[in-house]
Amino acid sequence: MTATLLDGRATAKAMRAELNEAVAEFKEQTGVTPTIAVVRAGEDPGSVWYANSIKKTMAGRGMDSQLHVLPLTATEEELVALVAELNADPSIHGIMIQEPMPKGMDEAAVKAALSPDKDVDGVHDVNAGRLANAAPAGRPPGVRPFFVPATPAGGMELMRRYGIEFSGKNVVIIGRSPIVGKPMALLLMRENATVTVCHSRTKDLPAVCREADILCVAVGRAEMVKGDWIKPGAVVVDFGVNDVEGKMIGDVAYAEAAEIAGMITPVPGGTGPMTNIMLCQNLLVAAKRKAG
Amino acid sequence: MTATLLDGRATAKAMRAELNEAVAEFKEQTGVTPTIAVVRAGEDPGSVWYANSIKKTMAGRGMDSQLHVLPLTATEEELVALVAELNADPSIHGIMIQEPMPKGMDEAAVKAALSPDKDVDGVHDVNAGRLANAAPAGRPPGVRPFFVPATPAGGMELMRRYGIEFSGKNVVIIGRSPIVGKPMALLLMRENATVTVCHSRTKDLPAVCREADILCVAVGRAEMVKGDWIKPGAVVVDFGVNDVEGKMIGDVAYAEAAEIAGMITPVPGGTGPMTNIMLCQNLLVAAKRKAG
Repeated sequence: MTATLLDGRATAKAMRAELNEAVAEFKEQTGVTPTIAVVRAGEDPGSVWYANSIKKTMAGRGMDSQLHVLPLTATEEELVALVAELNADPSIHGIMIQEPMPKGMDEAAVKAALSPDKDVDGVHDVNAGRLANAAPAGRPPGVRPFFVPATPAGGMELMRRYGIEFSGKNVVIIGRSPIVGKPMALLLMRENATVTVCHSRTKDLPAVCREADILCVAVGRAEMVKGDWIKPGAVVVDFGVNDVEGKMIGDVAYAEAAEIAGMITPVPGGTGPMTNIMLCQNLLVAAKRKAG
Repeated sequence: MTATLLDGRATAKAMRAELNEAVAEFKEQTGVTPTIAVVRAGEDPGSVWYANSIKKTMAGRGMDSQLHVLPLTATEEELVALVAELNADPSIHGIMIQEPMPKGMDEAAVKAALSPDKDVDGVHDVNAGRLANAAPAGRPPGVRPFFVPATPAGGMELMRRYGIEFSGKNVVIIGRSPIVGKPMALLLMRENATVTVCHSRTKDLPAVCREADILCVAVGRAEMVKGDWIKPGAVVVDFGVNDVEGKMIGDVAYAEAAEIAGMITPVPGGTGPMTNIMLCQNLLVAAKRKAG
């Protein structure tokens, strides 16, 4: 093990302390408690776990969360009506719609019903579009304010706090999902990195990865990225969360990779702990924007 | 000269004939004439020229265009009010707001006023976001219908009509603007290409370009890309339109590049002629969507 650990647990802890202060200050100035509404239909175990985790993290920061659960038999119209109600409720600053939604429901239509200003998870097309249309960092953005999904936002923040520079770096991202790979690519392009997005159809993926100064992996395949795919000294950011016989394993073969990389996120304890805290930060931003 | 010409003039001509038929059929079936409203403030010469060109191209297809010109002194509120009026007008199927807008105007706010369903030029955040969030081609898109800006849409269509395959290809795009580089990157990612986006901060740009099976250039610097930046046999798509002593010159040093590339767009006569025809196609699509 030679790589420096990109310690998401320690970083999230530091951010929690900062956020506690910022929330307290906001509440004192405005009398308003930032409040998120978590919405779902049914009791998917992953969603139940995540909603509890959000509630706990929010409470720890002095922020409120409400849980709105419809039965699994709820119709799209009912879910959209609930979202519309929460959009209109001035005491709610952020809304998260948990997935999976019930089978057969048009998820795109439900997400489109969100107010972009309350879309603290960055899933609305308007928020994705503003990120895509935003000018490089440092220039006037040319777009209205937007929210970035918490997972890629957390990966960026973790790298920033370790002083990693992006400008002119070769970045390779494996995975092109709308919630991790693509926003990560757009965020790093904004920071003047040269970004390559890879996926299952990429030819000679190991060779492409070996060119990366920064390698970000979000594919959902345990230990797919081997040590010899990594350029010596590179930064490796692993978004993978794979359950292998009850153990949480990343997309990167950690032990091998840590011998080669310059900096690396562990799994667990890397990008994972950053996600909830970024959601908290987005909620505070939403509440501040509303307070003007 | 060994490269095959990607002949935008001939391709646009073929598409015009196809579109004439499709428009005639639509009009016969519905009694509706697809109509675009072109909006601007002031008389920027480039905008005047482009509006005339659109009018002519639309008329040639049997479609209508209206021109709405406010004085250069118009306020943002006046422009937004005009857009709102056109959004509400059922006889208008597409709206294009010409840039530059008057100095000091919040362009993002004016574009946000567009109805995404009438945004046939693909500048609204919702349309950019749907493209960013869309699943790879061939799968259910996971987003509602959207419009792509005419220039990158034209580049894609030109390559498609020459039978160029994208899946697994290494694509390098130079330029990251919201109207060419970034949508081009997202379109090619959807088609399973491995896409690298380069820009002014990219290190050793020639070396990166030499890895490209398909090289797309949209930077606005005459003949920046040299022949020896090109992998032998590569496809070269030049979006550049540079006025050099009254002559229209692309971003690629054409004479050199054509000796090395397998296929190449000339300037003029490559991507340029495709742009207007794609706008026509988007307008017909908008009219069809409205007609259900």
